[in-house]
Amino acid sequence: MQPAARDPGLHNPGELFLDEIREQPAALRRLLSRSAELEVVTQAIVERAPTVVRLVGHGSSDAAASYGVYAFGLLPGWTAMRDSISLTVYYDSKVDLSSSVVIALSQSGETPDVVEYVQRARAKGALTVAITNGEDSGLAEAADATLALAAGPERAVAASKTFLNTLAALALLAAGAAGRSAEMAAGLMQVSEQLASSLAPLERAVQPVATTFAYVGRMYVIGRGIEFGTAREVALKLTETCRVAAEPLTATDLAHGPIAALDSMFPVWTIASRDASLPAVMEAAARVREAGATVVASGNAAEEIEGAAHVLPVPEPPHPILAPLLSVVPGQLFAGALAHAKGLDADYPTGLTKVTRAR
Amino acid sequence: MQPAARDPGLHNPGELFLDEIREQPAALRRLLSRSAELEVVTQAIVERAPTVVRLVGHGSSDAAASYGVYAFGLLPGWTAMRDSISLTVYYDSKVDLSSSVVIALSQSGETPDVVEYVQRARAKGALTVAITNGEDSGLAEAADATLALAAGPERAVAASKTFLNTLAALALLAAGAAGRSAEMAAGLMQVSEQLASSLAPLERAVQPVATTFAYVGRMYVIGRGIEFGTAREVALKLTETCRVAAEPLTATDLAHGPIAALDSMFPVWTIASRDASLPAVMEAAARVREAGATVVASGNAAEEIEGAAHVLPVPEPPHPILAPLLSVVPGQLFAGALAHAKGLDADYPTGLTKVTRAR
Repeated sequence: MQPAARDPGLHNPGELFLDEIREQPAALRRLLSRSAELEVVTQAIVERAPTVVRLVGHGSSDAAASYGVYAFGLLPGWTAMRDSISLTVYYDSKVDLSSSVVIALSQSGETPDVVEYVQRARAKGALTVAITNGEDSGLAEAADATLALAAGPERAVAASKTFLNTLAALALLAAGAAGRSAEMAAGLMQVSEQLASSLAPLERAVQPVATTFAYVGRMYVIGRGIEFGTAREVALKLTETCRVAAEPLTATDLAHGPIAALDSMFPVWTIASRDASLPAVMEAAARVREAGATVVASGNAAEEIEGAAHVLPVPEPPHPILAPLLSVVPGQLFAGALAHAKGLDADYPTGLTKVTRAR
Repeated sequence: MQPAARDPGLHNPGELFLDEIREQPAALRRLLSRSAELEVVTQAIVERAPTVVRLVGHGSSDAAASYGVYAFGLLPGWTAMRDSISLTVYYDSKVDLSSSVVIALSQSGETPDVVEYVQRARAKGALTVAITNGEDSGLAEAADATLALAAGPERAVAASKTFLNTLAALALLAAGAAGRSAEMAAGLMQVSEQLASSLAPLERAVQPVATTFAYVGRMYVIGRGIEFGTAREVALKLTETCRVAAEPLTATDLAHGPIAALDSMFPVWTIASRDASLPAVMEAAARVREAGATVVASGNAAEEIEGAAHVLPVPEPPHPILAPLLSVVPGQLFAGALAHAKGLDADYPTGLTKVTRAR
């Protein structure tokens, strides 16, 4: 693998990642300016009236796909799934894709098996949509339609603004399928303002948490329902930028085994948002405390988590489905701060490159 | 939470778990003796001709659900998904379930949100099937039809024979949907013999690996395609019985971030089976070695993994879809041996009970 291009002489470790986290409100507004493109893609999806929406991606894009399952499930009430790439690409299964919409997620648009999945699904009659920051990528070329993330160049290896814009794009498509495009666009514009005003206080708030956790090597990240994708993304940020073995878990899965591994050196990051899954997250946090582990509470209902050692609240968005766009931010900023506390460069994690060409 | 009943005076740590792993060939034959029951359930599923098969479960049952996606995708060519429990139970989404078959997996049959999912899905018109070891459980009562695992009482908290029989039950239902019940039953009978002959040599082979890894606190478990569920189950065994932070990853996802966390103290367990996904697993293992981490190779293509420090091969089954029933065994036995090496009791993990009532 090629290391990413860098000029250590001009580089402050972690500055690209932090700059791109800070840029998220502007990146979101750029996506919202692409309303004509969005309308075309929405129209194509609605006309197909799919029996199943199949979401595919790896890494942060797969975390965003978890969010997409809820966006389509809650807004138009459609069945959406994170599809198996290997069934189609490696095993050449005879699953009927003709009444499916495929939404392929890739920041670079060059992930080989995602491109190949789209080529095969399209040949089998699926309507294929690419959501990518790579407008001229192999993925954009392979798909029937493309919605550009318009996030601007992302230079840090760890994704931030492309993840946020992928969530926004999925929310817009799902709302469009429910005939609620304008409402969602207005909600996202408001989220952009909420992001802008919450970034600086959160940057300060994560510093003492990072200092405390400088020697931590293992973490769980807990979310449920619409926040499970956020948990997956925050765990991935901690793994790639901080070399922490951070595993995402639903609030309920914690009790089905993983809780046995907890101890005082194994902190748990919880994402608590004000929605129907909150009681399950509160119950999981109580179990974590009983096991003697430190709890960090984030999300717009962070204050509801009793006994948290650190509380990182975020604003409540105009629509509950938009909560993850705000609740991911403390996790992004914490990952950057923890990498710094550990003496690592969040911009260039060991062994990773911006475009992942691995199969 | 109630601790599991125990009599420390009569108990050798880990003996229940090991006994139940050893009992798997017999447990599998007991399931195969339930052919009349299987035929009834298969018939009901075929008559429904579902657009989607929705698999739900937590913990080991959710790992088995990952396998079910491939069993249905490869045998009848049906779309199967691990469904979101929270969309239906917490968010009360309006997703149409009337043309779905639900297959609910729970060893005890008492997991609250799985039972509630089935009640709601049945009320919404889905055909609901329970696969459970609890023939008189709340889940069996809630579902339209039940296929009993017939694994016999499982006393160790960590599942082994119920997991194996759940895989077998899913393979039988998927084969039945493809009109291949008899062939699959015969294949499983052969697997039972392969299991019986491979258990003792594997028990010996995992000992030196456990000794070497006694101080390990973090691992990845890599599988792809039909073996991803196996990777999830092995990681869960290591987490619950050995308190190792063990995360399951597809071969490809490793390159999308997690590889950055690897070092010489962070070994990687790979599951390599002879099928179309093998090259991706071999490539991932090569990446792991480049990162300086120790590789353990298991599965029926374990010998294909170059540079593995430990090789734990298993027999090749009569049909590739049955590989996971054999490749899970080295992981189960290793978890038991590692718990012993760490001075832990694999039978009674801290903070866990046999029936998980958590939401």
